[in-house]
Amino acid sequence: MPAPHMTSAEFRARGREMIDFIADYLDSVESRPVLGPVTPGDVLRALPAHPPEQGIAAGADSWEAVFRDLRDTILPNLNHWQHPRFFGFFPANTSHPAILAELLASALATPAFLWVTSPAATELETLVTDWLGEALGLPEPFLSRSGPGGGVIHTTASEASLTALLAARHRARTRAGAGPFHPTLYTSTQAHSSIVKAAMIAGLAHGPDDRTHVRLIDTDADFAMDPGALEAALRADRAAGRTPIYVAATVGTTSSTAIDPLRAITRVVRAESPGAWIHVDGAHAGVAALAPEFRAILDGLELCDSLCVNPHKWLLTTFDCDVFFLRDRAPLIEAMSITPAYLRNEASASGRVLDYRDWQAPLGRRFRALKLWFVMRHYGLEGLRAHIREHVRLAALFEHAVRADPRFEVVTPRTLNLVCFRLTPSPGETPARADARNAELARRLNASGFLYLTSTVLHPPGQPPRTLLRMAIGGAFTQERHVREAWACIQKHASEAQG
Amino acid sequence: MPAPHMTSAEFRARGREMIDFIADYLDSVESRPVLGPVTPGDVLRALPAHPPEQGIAAGADSWEAVFRDLRDTILPNLNHWQHPRFFGFFPANTSHPAILAELLASALATPAFLWVTSPAATELETLVTDWLGEALGLPEPFLSRSGPGGGVIHTTASEASLTALLAARHRARTRAGAGPFHPTLYTSTQAHSSIVKAAMIAGLAHGPDDRTHVRLIDTDADFAMDPGALEAALRADRAAGRTPIYVAATVGTTSSTAIDPLRAITRVVRAESPGAWIHVDGAHAGVAALAPEFRAILDGLELCDSLCVNPHKWLLTTFDCDVFFLRDRAPLIEAMSITPAYLRNEASASGRVLDYRDWQAPLGRRFRALKLWFVMRHYGLEGLRAHIREHVRLAALFEHAVRADPRFEVVTPRTLNLVCFRLTPSPGETPARADARNAELARRLNASGFLYLTSTVLHPPGQPPRTLLRMAIGGAFTQERHVREAWACIQKHASEAQG
Repeated sequence: MPAPHMTSAEFRARGREMIDFIADYLDSVESRPVLGPVTPGDVLRALPAHPPEQGIAAGADSWEAVFRDLRDTILPNLNHWQHPRFFGFFPANTSHPAILAELLASALATPAFLWVTSPAATELETLVTDWLGEALGLPEPFLSRSGPGGGVIHTTASEASLTALLAARHRARTRAGAGPFHPTLYTSTQAHSSIVKAAMIAGLAHGPDDRTHVRLIDTDADFAMDPGALEAALRADRAAGRTPIYVAATVGTTSSTAIDPLRAITRVVRAESPGAWIHVDGAHAGVAALAPEFRAILDGLELCDSLCVNPHKWLLTTFDCDVFFLRDRAPLIEAMSITPAYLRNEASASGRVLDYRDWQAPLGRRFRALKLWFVMRHYGLEGLRAHIREHVRLAALFEHAVRADPRFEVVTPRTLNLVCFRLTPSPGETPARADARNAELARRLNASGFLYLTSTVLHPPGQPPRTLLRMAIGGAFTQERHVREAWACIQKHASEAQG
Repeated sequence: MPAPHMTSAEFRARGREMIDFIADYLDSVESRPVLGPVTPGDVLRALPAHPPEQGIAAGADSWEAVFRDLRDTILPNLNHWQHPRFFGFFPANTSHPAILAELLASALATPAFLWVTSPAATELETLVTDWLGEALGLPEPFLSRSGPGGGVIHTTASEASLTALLAARHRARTRAGAGPFHPTLYTSTQAHSSIVKAAMIAGLAHGPDDRTHVRLIDTDADFAMDPGALEAALRADRAAGRTPIYVAATVGTTSSTAIDPLRAITRVVRAESPGAWIHVDGAHAGVAALAPEFRAILDGLELCDSLCVNPHKWLLTTFDCDVFFLRDRAPLIEAMSITPAYLRNEASASGRVLDYRDWQAPLGRRFRALKLWFVMRHYGLEGLRAHIREHVRLAALFEHAVRADPRFEVVTPRTLNLVCFRLTPSPGETPARADARNAELARRLNASGFLYLTSTVLHPPGQPPRTLLRMAIGGAFTQERHVREAWACIQKHASEAQG
């Protein structure tokens, strides 16, 4: 007896119902609390603890009940990242074209790990990563069709940073031959946690605080990596017989969207340790290079080895879609290839095709190119630039409003679409007390359900660490009025906190 | 100016169109060549080389053109994994309920990396992994709500095997303290390439052939790991002062679906190296334990540390959905945790919630629980067992047919739904000539477009390696008539090859 599949007719009906459910959700998400008063266990308690012996196919359950659970249990207990007043973390954009593409990809379900397992999916990935690379103004070598490098779609920037580290280590270790090899890697104190986690995965750190191989470079007053400090660290390690293999610069740090100075970093690295791999983590901010007026954030990239940007953050392409670009794909493929008999095939052996499994850690992979292709065709580069520019404009507007209110201060220079701000310390207030007031303001704002933002801690050189609020403006559906409403809400809560 | 989004009304219209496009595709996929005569570059040449300045939103392109490209360029150049006569590699099941869930997940786009970033997504993942664990008959410790372990959804078995290795290494290294630490890991010569790739990623192998830390254990005549050979390897390494940290057993090898004897392996490991982590890679075959009559494949699991199974292969849940189960989650979380200020939150600090980012390598993650929940509710356990049983029945039927035709031989014992077979060597035929004839048969079959299967090489102890054909019967929509048609096609081509 075959599996009791849904009929084609029922799928068409349920599919329409789901499309309408989604359209209704996106139309009305603004009226929901961004994060409701959820307590741990609410969802687990509301649903059956054991799997059903008989399902919908046997008439023991129904799609009506599924939709009811979605309405009553799932949606009220979500943190709604597509809410236009979600300003926490970094955005996780979706969009209508991306949703349609994901729908199709899940039906085709064609794993694009070898060219032969999915020729169209592979070639479309080559095409759209080149499209995006060209749109970002990347140097020619970073494009598959014109250079020795190219782009590939990863799940996350975590995966890209790890993969770059593996390629870096493989290259350096091969060069070292049988000689001693004590590899070291470098990133700033403001880099994303995934860089140190990559070192942990690669066996170069036994826990987050192990500094046997990892160097965290100090930042300047604006929280960008200090090239002088990097130079000193590289020199010290070289003098001690260690091999610097990997420098991860950040274009848009998580706490404050600081931009590491790529050109100065490449100068230092090329002078001190020409063999080290320079990876640029542009997960959130990198896509801003679509607009020529922001392209300076990638200045110096032609001397770097790799870059990742996440269209699934601020470029309307549903997670997962991190695009990892390389100046030269050969060291990566050397580091990652392993070919058992069951994966051998004529096309791969011919050398005329790309097999993206060799560009990543796992074997399997989804048909992710489809969503980036749909997004680029729907919005066009003009539409995508409008998205970026509008949010930078709104962040400037928000920054201006904060600066005009003496109860608040802007803590770090705004570079793009993130504003770091906090309640101005009262005269004589201890740093701990000021931090507590800011944490309390964040708690109240999020408890209101009207908006959502997250806080962080920044440690300016020579000063105590500061708790501050992050207003990340990049939601797919965030418009000017949402930012104005949020600011009014923040002002209101600040008044109550003062009074 | 905000991004030019699609209107809600247009999304509803295009969504319906896409649902119908998919239903039509699945209704008619059988009439397509499984893999057409695709040549490298066909897709790249057919599509514009540069990204559009203006898109559909600006009236410069249209959804009609997108659908036309899908019909004319993408679909004809895919390897159709949902074709009912796709018998290559292992299956990559999708299903209608899974498609609906992926559609919804891509609209909610709520990254479930911390509980607080998506409470419902996190708790639904706890629920459905427990549902699946219970359905597979896993020991209590492997369930989140009753034990110290639990399940988490990863992208792939590659990710699970790597993650298990990292937990294993962290635990062993912490125990070793400041003492010498030369870790070793063990898997069979028939294990999936992802185990050795995990060692490469973790820094325990500089390339696939590096045996400094990796031991490939011989298999028996049925290609299952030989516990005696494992015992000898563990003893030799212990005697040499090395620390065995990780043993990866396979339940369903890729080449031939051989089942490593878990109970015997656990006995050897517990006696020789009680601290080593035993991971079970049940990527393809593990889900067969849903049916009590196949549950013996997991006998001994209570003494293992982790298991992964892939509902995205043979359990109707669209890729990506690997479920990684642990007997104890603590060593994993210790190995993977890193908490910068911007990820700190009250819920995590309370210890009352699970944060799945600490159960995996990357930070970000999709709302993957939804599809497994939809699949289990639609099919029920009865429906899922029917799916497994039907394909095992069809494989037995195919095996019987092969055995009845003297031109063919079955090469290895069939354990579940995969039949390894080949053209019987002629009297006096050299092994190389026999291999070439089999490779040629596979090439002809795939070139016909009527079916798709892949070949592999098996090396029986004391004999030359043999090229053989793999008939993997597990497609979501594969029924008896497709298997019978495939066998008739294979017989026809065998006659032509003989004649």
